[in-house]
Amino acid sequence: MEETRMKKIKTMVALALMVLVLSACGNLGGSSMSTGGESSSKSTTLTGKAESGDYQGVIQNGRYVTSKSRGVNVSQNDNQYNLKSFENGLLTVSKRVFSPDKYIFREGQLLSTSTVQDWLGRQSKSNPTGLNPKDNGSTSPTKRNPIYLQQLEEQDYMTQNGKNLKLSGVTIGLGLNSVDYYTKVKFGATYETKISKAEAQKQGQAIANTVLARLRKRAALKNVPITIALYRQASNDSLVGGTFFAYSTNKAGTTKVGSWTSISQANYVYPPSSGSSNTGNSNDSGSFENFKTQVQSFFPNLSGVTAQAQYTDKKLTGMNVNITTQFYSQTEIISFTQYLQQAAQKYLPANAPIDILVKSADGVQSYLSRSANEKRFTSHVFNSY
Amino acid sequence: MEETRMKKIKTMVALALMVLVLSACGNLGGSSMSTGGESSSKSTTLTGKAESGDYQGVIQNGRYVTSKSRGVNVSQNDNQYNLKSFENGLLTVSKRVFSPDKYIFREGQLLSTSTVQDWLGRQSKSNPTGLNPKDNGSTSPTKRNPIYLQQLEEQDYMTQNGKNLKLSGVTIGLGLNSVDYYTKVKFGATYETKISKAEAQKQGQAIANTVLARLRKRAALKNVPITIALYRQASNDSLVGGTFFAYSTNKAGTTKVGSWTSISQANYVYPPSSGSSNTGNSNDSGSFENFKTQVQSFFPNLSGVTAQAQYTDKKLTGMNVNITTQFYSQTEIISFTQYLQQAAQKYLPANAPIDILVKSADGVQSYLSRSANEKRFTSHVFNSY
Repeated sequence: MEETRMKKIKTMVALALMVLVLSACGNLGGSSMSTGGESSSKSTTLTGKAESGDYQGVIQNGRYVTSKSRGVNVSQNDNQYNLKSFENGLLTVSKRVFSPDKYIFREGQLLSTSTVQDWLGRQSKSNPTGLNPKDNGSTSPTKRNPIYLQQLEEQDYMTQNGKNLKLSGVTIGLGLNSVDYYTKVKFGATYETKISKAEAQKQGQAIANTVLARLRKRAALKNVPITIALYRQASNDSLVGGTFFAYSTNKAGTTKVGSWTSISQANYVYPPSSGSSNTGNSNDSGSFENFKTQVQSFFPNLSGVTAQAQYTDKKLTGMNVNITTQFYSQTEIISFTQYLQQAAQKYLPANAPIDILVKSADGVQSYLSRSANEKRFTSHVFNSY
Repeated sequence: MEETRMKKIKTMVALALMVLVLSACGNLGGSSMSTGGESSSKSTTLTGKAESGDYQGVIQNGRYVTSKSRGVNVSQNDNQYNLKSFENGLLTVSKRVFSPDKYIFREGQLLSTSTVQDWLGRQSKSNPTGLNPKDNGSTSPTKRNPIYLQQLEEQDYMTQNGKNLKLSGVTIGLGLNSVDYYTKVKFGATYETKISKAEAQKQGQAIANTVLARLRKRAALKNVPITIALYRQASNDSLVGGTFFAYSTNKAGTTKVGSWTSISQANYVYPPSSGSSNTGNSNDSGSFENFKTQVQSFFPNLSGVTAQAQYTDKKLTGMNVNITTQFYSQTEIISFTQYLQQAAQKYLPANAPIDILVKSADGVQSYLSRSANEKRFTSHVFNSY
């Protein structure tokens, strides 16, 4: 019975902690804070945490504090996969440095739209702050100066001190091209300059140094830790975005990037497109192929089954499966989802977080999900009255 | 301590039962069964249960057993909301009669596409089995004979006896028009005949009697309980489907419908469309309006916020909230979802199951859900690599 009592006590402690954590989450219209240096008449609240590993965000007067350079990266990316993976990846890098338990996320407030746009341009007389090299006049794919820096994002990390939010860290993401697409004449054919990984890294590190020095000239950023992360953009025809390959943490006051930590990450698409050399992990690719075959034989009508997979240090760290169906009836969707739950557990790689989304022309039909440490998938069938 | 011990025993019993239930779920490629009367060389398995209140479905030779009249109802409905709500509603009625703990769901195997198509037509010399009245020649909205029966669905309920699946119940859903849309000449203007609830009920009950008598003439259905449920179709401009209003359970062998049990169910859209008299429950409508106002002020760009709500016996029994956004960045979607979690808990009606789907032009972005007996919403943000 002693063991039972201990277990009971442990449960109670866990519950009490949970209540503490929950009540620590920001609450709507609840206690307000003021942001350091700004008018304290503004009411600042937090979004609350949906999951324990997430950051809370900052709300001011009931409105989300959006980025000062909002929308710039949308126009900078022809391949939308580079947008989501860049933002998600930057959050993941930030979590290594600024723990979500201590820091609060705020969209970048220091670099404005025009600053970022200028920085992303070529250096020229009219744009002295451009971080991309001067135009050397050549239009040859191998002789011209390509655009190295394609997108840039600032993320602010705040700490809470009583009723105040204080800027306590900044993360800058630099998106570097693997291919620079250009035209020789306006609206002309598109040509490509390929940029090797080594070249992108060299250029990215140089740009990072310039960015750090510039940020330190701003009063608000003089004494704040600044993390800079380098991302390699995927090509425009890729069905998966790029990946971060290095980051550098720079203590308050430092004006030169000291050292770089490399990130070993790779994204693949399953099944690999024919002729592609990026076939990913052959075990996982085989498992996925089996899953796909099973799923496609379940219904008389074929459904499209593809996946994005991400590997960190050669280990599968996430998979997004997309299933596109013909029109299925609601009872068919329910049965299909139940079947997927078993087939996914049986065939898809274990020990990695996996999302499965079932879509038809009418929109999302159902969804299944499993965390890294779970065995069973949870599922949800979307209903309509 | 006695109480603790009792609790522990209860937990163990519950766990043991859970294991039993889980192991009773069909498993892929596991033990096979044969369906009564059919060749036992076919391998029959079950889909497994995703949630405890769901039916398992029937798989034969790795392929889902689809309905023999698959696709008929799709062509019968101009308003797709009538499709999903009809199928979901019929499942709900069936669960009252054939418990998912005991019965296994099979898509209708007894009525073929041509049978259902004939039954849904008008009675005529060339179509003697038509369940809709003869054409009386009139094209006047009030004098013509309207089409009462718009869609029909069969659902089969099986029991497992060792390795055999046996048909042990059938549910028939009859979808009856509230408005019959017709043209006076081919491809001409559309006219409407309105059908009162009383008239639809009278006609539906008569059709149910005919259907029951016909089914009893089939050897396979002579001695099987048959449930018939009546559904009132929503009009074509409705943003929510119709509802079931009555059902009748008929014991094995009976050839006349004995008695009807009424179902009090109503669907509403929030916010109600301007000028609509179907404004729903004013408390819930007000709560939703507050939620909508909060959510729409969160971002500078407006997002569309609407809901479908279902009431059973005047009590809110479910709500599907749809939020359509402009393009938001991934960090904005994460923060928005966290905010929604709090706003939904604070403003939306308590004690009802609620789904919230956040969509953009790119597809589904995130989703939140709460069961009837929970307080907190769980959420999921869809990711991309």
